[in-house]
Amino acid sequence: MIYFDNAATGGFKPRAVTDAAENVIRYLSANPGRSGHRLSVTGANIVYNCRSIAAEVFGGTPERVIFTKNCTEALNIAIFGTVNRGGHVITTVYEHNSVLRPLYSLQKQGIINFDTVDDTDKDMISAIEEKIRPETYLIVINAVSNVTGKILPVQEIGALAKKHNLLFIVDGAQAGGHIHINIEKNNITALALAGHKGLYGIMGSGMLILSETANVTPLLYGGTGSESFSLSQPECYPERLESGTLNLPAIAALSEGLRYIKNNMINFSETVYEHTARLLDGIYDISRVKCYSKPNPAGIVSFLIEGMESSEAADILNNEFDIAVRGGLHCAPLIHKKLGTSPDGLVRASLSVQNSAREIDFFIKAIKKICER
Amino acid sequence: MIYFDNAATGGFKPRAVTDAAENVIRYLSANPGRSGHRLSVTGANIVYNCRSIAAEVFGGTPERVIFTKNCTEALNIAIFGTVNRGGHVITTVYEHNSVLRPLYSLQKQGIINFDTVDDTDKDMISAIEEKIRPETYLIVINAVSNVTGKILPVQEIGALAKKHNLLFIVDGAQAGGHIHINIEKNNITALALAGHKGLYGIMGSGMLILSETANVTPLLYGGTGSESFSLSQPECYPERLESGTLNLPAIAALSEGLRYIKNNMINFSETVYEHTARLLDGIYDISRVKCYSKPNPAGIVSFLIEGMESSEAADILNNEFDIAVRGGLHCAPLIHKKLGTSPDGLVRASLSVQNSAREIDFFIKAIKKICER
Repeated sequence: MIYFDNAATGGFKPRAVTDAAENVIRYLSANPGRSGHRLSVTGANIVYNCRSIAAEVFGGTPERVIFTKNCTEALNIAIFGTVNRGGHVITTVYEHNSVLRPLYSLQKQGIINFDTVDDTDKDMISAIEEKIRPETYLIVINAVSNVTGKILPVQEIGALAKKHNLLFIVDGAQAGGHIHINIEKNNITALALAGHKGLYGIMGSGMLILSETANVTPLLYGGTGSESFSLSQPECYPERLESGTLNLPAIAALSEGLRYIKNNMINFSETVYEHTARLLDGIYDISRVKCYSKPNPAGIVSFLIEGMESSEAADILNNEFDIAVRGGLHCAPLIHKKLGTSPDGLVRASLSVQNSAREIDFFIKAIKKICER
Repeated sequence: MIYFDNAATGGFKPRAVTDAAENVIRYLSANPGRSGHRLSVTGANIVYNCRSIAAEVFGGTPERVIFTKNCTEALNIAIFGTVNRGGHVITTVYEHNSVLRPLYSLQKQGIINFDTVDDTDKDMISAIEEKIRPETYLIVINAVSNVTGKILPVQEIGALAKKHNLLFIVDGAQAGGHIHINIEKNNITALALAGHKGLYGIMGSGMLILSETANVTPLLYGGTGSESFSLSQPECYPERLESGTLNLPAIAALSEGLRYIKNNMINFSETVYEHTARLLDGIYDISRVKCYSKPNPAGIVSFLIEGMESSEAADILNNEFDIAVRGGLHCAPLIHKKLGTSPDGLVRASLSVQNSAREIDFFIKAIKKICER
């Protein structure tokens, strides 16, 4: 199979990643840090180690690296945990439902209202700044669109947030492992990440990286192994936001994934960029094909074949060519509305550095064959 | 090492469980059910399969088996998701902080108030019934105390809840795999379970089993792969309560764990009961030892050595005898207050069916040696 669905879950895992997960599953089945015995202490060290590497990669301190089950949980903690008395939020049309649905639920409850800006008529920075009002307290954006692969200007939006004293939450689901993001340099209050995409971890892992100034109300309350006498959730991080047993196999794997990208990301990003350029080059001139992506380091190429539903095209690619892509709306409805591709959506091929030029060329041929019918 | 910390995380995993997790990690790294391609469809089948087995074991329908990252998340979804306009809640002194802290946070916000009942002076049923008021809407109990191993009368409390038309949430963290619980037979609205304890799954897995009548507001909002055009969370289960990428390795493992206990639980429970009886028998007469458990099928034996902090005893067992137990409060502060063992806590040995009589006898000798110093 040619696996071009890496934006959903990365298809390739380094041997160190799978070994780390398996080692925990087979030999270290014990709650990390909850007891004082050898296995529990070893587990706690693995967890701390992962926090440290994450802080090296994304900035901040190990104590403010919060482990979650996926990027969605991280975003929900960040959005609901900073809402306080509510107010006005600015977000973009590029967002995933993991941002839009939490915001919409808060709006329906009358706690916030939010604007979704786009950058059709003006640049994103101006579009956002124009919407800032006295009651605005938060900007939330995804760093890379999961539909088009477009990179949003995180650095500049962070500076804008700082200038206006706003919180700044970044959805790094498609950015982690592909582009550099640093919570300090980019003035990010909370950065949400998926472990199982560009960071080479396994499913069941996500992170929320908090700035020193972030003050986040928990979404989950429960046992933390600390201050157990108290019915209040501990104030200190990470315990404040991490209740219940952690997913040790996934955290051990994520450590290795982070190590893998730490020194390789620049090279990887260049290769992935070239992959998307090659793919776009190959399909751009095919009549019936309409592309919605530009070359990008996140590996995302979305397009449609005129006269064919995106799900049909994806099915043909799977059934006849054994190529895995994803059709539909990719859980990001507003960008499809903007692109005029709603409700049918687009075919998304999402590539990783491990995909080969040969796979891309085979894919291009497949698209040609489908279009020539 | 002798591993007697199975109530935190089960130490033994059947080969089928570890193989299932590893198979997904190595060969099935793709989002279950999000795309239409082969890997995604295979993943979706694994997930549905696990829902089906869980419903066979605990009652209900596959669609109302909600996968969570741990039992704590399941309890938080159940408690926060059914609070509606608030009111009065009845719980017990046996509860874990995964129940007490959510309730306490709701009480601090003025949304609910709650009573914690105990069964010192009267039986639990009468103690609960006495506290029911017109504004009471919920009873929440753990089925088995994680501190003493005491089994609460789930069946009778369920009948009481039904009689008074109350919601009934059960924390099955220590019960799953050890005693029979069925949401229909026991009139349970929502049953929360840990995957990595008595159900033989791996860390990162939990479940919430909902009754047909349960109506639960989501705690997490996000992508579900369904109704992606809508900014509202889907109404239908399980999507309503499952946002973001599922933990496929853990779910695949849990299927095998559930299969493992499905036909063996009665035998297992008998053996575990005998294990605890043997252990209690062996330490009961040691001077300085005070026991707080009775023989039970959950494998939990708590005790203290007079004149020694529980953490010190646990450390000696680990360092000198290579035995893993857990000291302290076990995240259940109120039961320790009731027992008079707060704030120092107890030594908890938690056994599984895979522990041997020989290990238990070695443990008894170790306790004797420690007490004779």
